[in-house]
Amino acid sequence: MSRQKNGKELEKIAQLIRYNILTMTTEAGSGHPTSSLSAVELMVGLLFGGIFRYDPEYPERPNNDRLLFSKGHASPLFYSLWAAAGKVSPEDLLTYRRFGSPLEGHPTVNFPYAEAATGSLGQGLSIGVGMALNAKLDKLTYRTYVLLGDSEMAEGSVWEAMEIAAHYRLDNLLAVLDVNRLGQRGETMYGHNLEAYRRRAEAFGWQALTIDGHNLAEVVDAYCQADQAIGRPTMIIARTLKGKGVSFIEDKNGWHGKVLKREELDLALAELGEVDKEVRGTFAAPQDLQPSQKAEAETATLSYGLGEMVATRKAYGNALKRLYPAFPQMVCLDGEVSNSTMAEYFKEEHADRFFEMYIAEQNMAGAALGLACRGKIPFVSTFAAFMSRAYDQVRMSQYSDANIKFVGSHAGVSIGMDGPSQMGLEDIAFFRTIHDGLVFYPCDAVSTEKLVAKAARHCGLVYLRTTRMATPVIYEAKEEFPIGGCKVLRQSDADQATLVAAGLTVHEALAACESLGKEGIAVRVIDLYCIKPVDRKTLQKAAAASKLLITVEDHYPEGGLGEAVRSALWDAKVTVASLAVHRKPKSGKPDELLDYEDISARAIADKVRELIG
Amino acid sequence: MSRQKNGKELEKIAQLIRYNILTMTTEAGSGHPTSSLSAVELMVGLLFGGIFRYDPEYPERPNNDRLLFSKGHASPLFYSLWAAAGKVSPEDLLTYRRFGSPLEGHPTVNFPYAEAATGSLGQGLSIGVGMALNAKLDKLTYRTYVLLGDSEMAEGSVWEAMEIAAHYRLDNLLAVLDVNRLGQRGETMYGHNLEAYRRRAEAFGWQALTIDGHNLAEVVDAYCQADQAIGRPTMIIARTLKGKGVSFIEDKNGWHGKVLKREELDLALAELGEVDKEVRGTFAAPQDLQPSQKAEAETATLSYGLGEMVATRKAYGNALKRLYPAFPQMVCLDGEVSNSTMAEYFKEEHADRFFEMYIAEQNMAGAALGLACRGKIPFVSTFAAFMSRAYDQVRMSQYSDANIKFVGSHAGVSIGMDGPSQMGLEDIAFFRTIHDGLVFYPCDAVSTEKLVAKAARHCGLVYLRTTRMATPVIYEAKEEFPIGGCKVLRQSDADQATLVAAGLTVHEALAACESLGKEGIAVRVIDLYCIKPVDRKTLQKAAAASKLLITVEDHYPEGGLGEAVRSALWDAKVTVASLAVHRKPKSGKPDELLDYEDISARAIADKVRELIG
Repeated sequence: MSRQKNGKELEKIAQLIRYNILTMTTEAGSGHPTSSLSAVELMVGLLFGGIFRYDPEYPERPNNDRLLFSKGHASPLFYSLWAAAGKVSPEDLLTYRRFGSPLEGHPTVNFPYAEAATGSLGQGLSIGVGMALNAKLDKLTYRTYVLLGDSEMAEGSVWEAMEIAAHYRLDNLLAVLDVNRLGQRGETMYGHNLEAYRRRAEAFGWQALTIDGHNLAEVVDAYCQADQAIGRPTMIIARTLKGKGVSFIEDKNGWHGKVLKREELDLALAELGEVDKEVRGTFAAPQDLQPSQKAEAETATLSYGLGEMVATRKAYGNALKRLYPAFPQMVCLDGEVSNSTMAEYFKEEHADRFFEMYIAEQNMAGAALGLACRGKIPFVSTFAAFMSRAYDQVRMSQYSDANIKFVGSHAGVSIGMDGPSQMGLEDIAFFRTIHDGLVFYPCDAVSTEKLVAKAARHCGLVYLRTTRMATPVIYEAKEEFPIGGCKVLRQSDADQATLVAAGLTVHEALAACESLGKEGIAVRVIDLYCIKPVDRKTLQKAAAASKLLITVEDHYPEGGLGEAVRSALWDAKVTVASLAVHRKPKSGKPDELLDYEDISARAIADKVRELIG
Repeated sequence: MSRQKNGKELEKIAQLIRYNILTMTTEAGSGHPTSSLSAVELMVGLLFGGIFRYDPEYPERPNNDRLLFSKGHASPLFYSLWAAAGKVSPEDLLTYRRFGSPLEGHPTVNFPYAEAATGSLGQGLSIGVGMALNAKLDKLTYRTYVLLGDSEMAEGSVWEAMEIAAHYRLDNLLAVLDVNRLGQRGETMYGHNLEAYRRRAEAFGWQALTIDGHNLAEVVDAYCQADQAIGRPTMIIARTLKGKGVSFIEDKNGWHGKVLKREELDLALAELGEVDKEVRGTFAAPQDLQPSQKAEAETATLSYGLGEMVATRKAYGNALKRLYPAFPQMVCLDGEVSNSTMAEYFKEEHADRFFEMYIAEQNMAGAALGLACRGKIPFVSTFAAFMSRAYDQVRMSQYSDANIKFVGSHAGVSIGMDGPSQMGLEDIAFFRTIHDGLVFYPCDAVSTEKLVAKAARHCGLVYLRTTRMATPVIYEAKEEFPIGGCKVLRQSDADQATLVAAGLTVHEALAACESLGKEGIAVRVIDLYCIKPVDRKTLQKAAAASKLLITVEDHYPEGGLGEAVRSALWDAKVTVASLAVHRKPKSGKPDELLDYEDISARAIADKVRELIG
């Protein structure tokens, strides 16, 4: 069965799309027409050649096929495709890149048919992996298509996605590689050598098809062949010309990200010839399938005893396992360290919802975004230090309004002997920058469990930081931990200073408070378990009472707890001293390192004495 | 010519090394003995089989071969090799992982024979690429050897290094892949399937040799064969057993990162049999070659006119070109955007010292570290947004005391129409966390040029942030810009507030100052071109004078300029208000976006009126 539409019709649509790409970019005065023109036939053949199964009246239909433009700069093509589908008016196309238009320079989720924000190259295939995994998990038949540029094939993240897609046998994932030979500033590493890409794709376990990307019949045939794949993903490797269709820019270097001047546009449109502005394409219909929905159920209650020694990373694993009945959309991804992050507790009970992503954090974060886009609640774990591998993916996911929970374990110098390479000491600074993101840093098992529940309930990006070593349980099981709150653990009318701590340093602060108390020095102690948003009101009250705050954190001084507190108290005219990791860390026992960095109970007490003296 | 040593001798050394690995890790109580045992023959054959050419009395000798343990957790093997070379005493081996010992959990440069700090997996091959590029550039004959674990082959950064090594025909680079089948929590994606690795390596343009990694003769033969390679790098893919040599841990899951208990150690040592504790290995001698050294020369003087419109990114390109004579160790790496970052100005004049690293930022940062380790001064550029791709590599390079200059262009919402995916809005927060790192953010061409010179002169990590759009030159060519300084651009005795800005917002602050002046409101304006370290003294003076500071930055509020100023004034009891990118950005014209985010002259003047009112 050939699903190919009338070839003439497709050509007309391609023609209209070229017209729109050229006019909208000239109108905007910026954009990437040449990178769009190379992929016109590849996308017209897919969307309107009877391949792509999509209900345009209901983009969220669970079994719709999915299309991602990993080469997000080809957004003029992307928007023109939806115009050809009748979903964007010709007038709206001309708002491209204007302030307030949903047709942004690179696609964001302000455009209703964009599955995710793209534009940082090399990320789309990972998002596609997440969507394809989701289809397998939910037994849906939709396919995920990802348009890739040849330049972005240099990104390692693409090869992480390639290897994992083969590993999970994602035959519902199709990559479309637009080999237009030219990058931003010249030729790519392989130019038009399609075989170079084919060899790599096949070595990574993919089916690879090489075609002429401007021949609509070849294009549609390749999709039909790809759809037959069983047990492995397919990459369609297409030879194309950048700027195809306009003689004076076609296959020419120096035209990346450049638009035609008005007079050049006139020449180009004359070359294009007559354009049928009324032609519209239609999609094939998706199968009407729904994912099976599990009902939400009660979760077990907590049973930690006060004083019990439990590492917060273990409480995290326990929480995942315990909370799943209440959050049946939960899935879990881990970067080959589940026996350290303790995500393995979840895996042991819900193996089908646990995805081993191996040591490839970029793809893990991208796949989590794909799963989140399809309604899952992904919990993503690795060492806090190695989260930094995926910061570009995390950064980008905020522009997709993503609902993802990142969990970094082994935070701080308190991991001890493994040394600085394994210590997360900048994670709070990074995750605090995420617009509307939350940052949690619990100090005991009870608060960890409660905050994991908050994270699951909250729709948005959350970062939770856990600790390697065991810490005593200090909260009763009934304690509540609101987002944006904190806990005042010690206070009196005679407080001379307030210690603000989180995670491990809460226990050091409590010990310092006790030893100072014996000397007759009263200090307030606050557990700032929520570092973003921060509890300004309680901090202001403490500032009013004691005029001196000392923050203590197992993190570098910049961008962490200390600066969060200072920013909350920007107009309070109080002293906020900071104890943080201020020497280059090294291997050693946790206690030795806490003391070396002056974030131990001893150092805290010293600082209080110094500053009140 | 076979360079193989007496096989019996090598076996004795291997035996001693196994003994040391086991005893030192049991003594430390932590570490990775099994991951070390798998690679013993691979490393003994290399170092003491007549292959490795090294002068142990002079580790810095320019033509010494270089060895990197990308699998840094095999540090017990690494230190034991140097013990077998007579460079670490048996007593010192037993200080492994102790506080203050140079034998840290993962190698750092505190150990004199470590070329670079490793331990975040997947980074070593990139460092090796940098060292191999250096040899080619300096016409030295040394070879660079990188020991890789099989688990870390999942990292995309490894494939970035693979593709670029083939692209640059680095036949002086050898990767040794220790396929011991087991990762931290179970089997790797490919287990003992050596062919899976061979196919991938060959597809990426490498020579690949598969061997039995415990057969010393095969190992040494493979190195000899690899050394004959012309025009392409070689990967030796070795089948090994994790825990090799100790029956009850050999090839067994569940033994990653676990040490033997005392009684287990006794059993293991009994299995090992008699060990010759006096046996020592020797290296081959390196050719006595020196890189040709260019003398430092005068640089041209600056010729920007006051008021001239020049983008700081262009000034950056100009500076590179202009300064090279004074810094003949300078090299330049760019991530396929040199016509945006303006690194192309350097490339045009010094093509041999410019490395096109394509869109693969992780490998670019790693290769820069390799070049820096060999004495070069690498300037590394891409968009500030895409620097986030390499944050783990940047993070790690601080533990190698690296001398690298990172330059992020297109910072902030002021890039305009391309939209949020291309906007660096968290780069200051990240780079401020780097221990002893510097952060520069110049506002005009003159300060940019001067700060690039400061960066080149300073030995250490520097981040410099540039702007896309042109800004007026406000400094005379003779102005100096000390590290840790700032410039007070406007001041009077009547200042009611101080505006602290950097980069683009300096110009907005000056405009606000002017319009407020017309209303009779005097404000001080500071150009905080050096965000780390920050000029506490000048800020304190401003705080004493005006009691109100307002920071303005084209960056998210967290971890940026505003928090740097608040931290500098932690005990000054002043109000520090912050204007920063506080709404989710979108596409638009630069002016529209600056105003939307309330960091425009209009917004600054409004804020001043509000707060002094």
